[in-house]
Amino acid sequence: MAAEPQSDGGSRRSANWAARRDAIVDTSARVFAQNGYHATGINELCAANELGKGALYHYIGSKEELLAAIHDRVMDEVLASGARVAASKGTPSEKLVKLGDGLLDIITRFPDHVWVFLHEFPALTGERAETFRERRREYEKRVEAVIAAGVRAGEFRKVDPRLTTLAWLGMHNYTYLWWKSDRKLTPRDVAQRFADIFVDGIRA
Amino acid sequence: MAAEPQSDGGSRRSANWAARRDAIVDTSARVFAQNGYHATGINELCAANELGKGALYHYIGSKEELLAAIHDRVMDEVLASGARVAASKGTPSEKLVKLGDGLLDIITRFPDHVWVFLHEFPALTGERAETFRERRREYEKRVEAVIAAGVRAGEFRKVDPRLTTLAWLGMHNYTYLWWKSDRKLTPRDVAQRFADIFVDGIRA
Repeated sequence: MAAEPQSDGGSRRSANWAARRDAIVDTSARVFAQNGYHATGINELCAANELGKGALYHYIGSKEELLAAIHDRVMDEVLASGARVAASKGTPSEKLVKLGDGLLDIITRFPDHVWVFLHEFPALTGERAETFRERRREYEKRVEAVIAAGVRAGEFRKVDPRLTTLAWLGMHNYTYLWWKSDRKLTPRDVAQRFADIFVDGIRA
Repeated sequence: MAAEPQSDGGSRRSANWAARRDAIVDTSARVFAQNGYHATGINELCAANELGKGALYHYIGSKEELLAAIHDRVMDEVLASGARVAASKGTPSEKLVKLGDGLLDIITRFPDHVWVFLHEFPALTGERAETFRERRREYEKRVEAVIAAGVRAGEFRKVDPRLTTLAWLGMHNYTYLWWKSDRKLTPRDVAQRFADIFVDGIRA
């Protein structure tokens, strides 16, 4: 694919263009994670990405669009993981283990994005803020559905699915603050130990 | 107490001065939580506190000192809670419930401070950063000690105290992102439900 980038929307753009944009999103996530979204100017983003302003805007549109793209890069993966688990076979306990496994895998692969995601989401405005809220809620509902199914099946005790989902999300999402990639435990090890606590903690 | 503020250190300052400083810290925490630490200038802090620059600096010293004071306002309470629980009678399970109860009480009473605390701590430098790390670690060690005591007593299964502490902290600290004071559940209700999950989840 050696096609030139086109200016008429993402759908007709080349794979090269998309790969280049992803690289810019990833580099910019690192800069925002280090220096903060508001404190980072376009000039710093240009320098980090080794691009002029025109080229940078060609790929990202605006600074807020870049922030939304960082959120999407995480949320695309998170939602795909949630959909895979929902479509899979298994008991609610097994699905909760798979959800935790998927989530910790994403958090530890995208530490900068998750940092930006959790800290800077209030900077999204209008439709972008609404889309982000809807997508985050979509994932929460995946977790809630598994917990509610476990309660209905008598596998979990009668916990409040919403509050229990928030407890579960906290335990997993908070790893962004302490995870270091040089730890001896893999994300999968941590997910298993968290599941041991959580699933036992709500078992009927 | 009508004494004028003195410039020779906090110890000889009046109760009025300390109360005024606390009020400035609280107001500034709200401004930082809304607009971000880096994006907030001294002029905005002056406006929010209805003070001139000279008066503001008289109370806070510097913007970073103000950030450290916001951290301290939360950490003073968190460490006092941890010390009270450590000095109290009770089983490790009971102490873990009390720790959660204390932590959620603080998080829900200081939502702006906790937001700033968890998002802006990388802006602390030098000795202030070190002090903050030490104080945070001190609380984590309180939780770890209770979990380790429970394992030794055979009340909890052989979990890794450090990883289990991080799971516990995540579940509790993350409430800062979703807690709304108009919820039907009190902080104590939430703490009890979290304890039901967590303590059952590590029970031997």
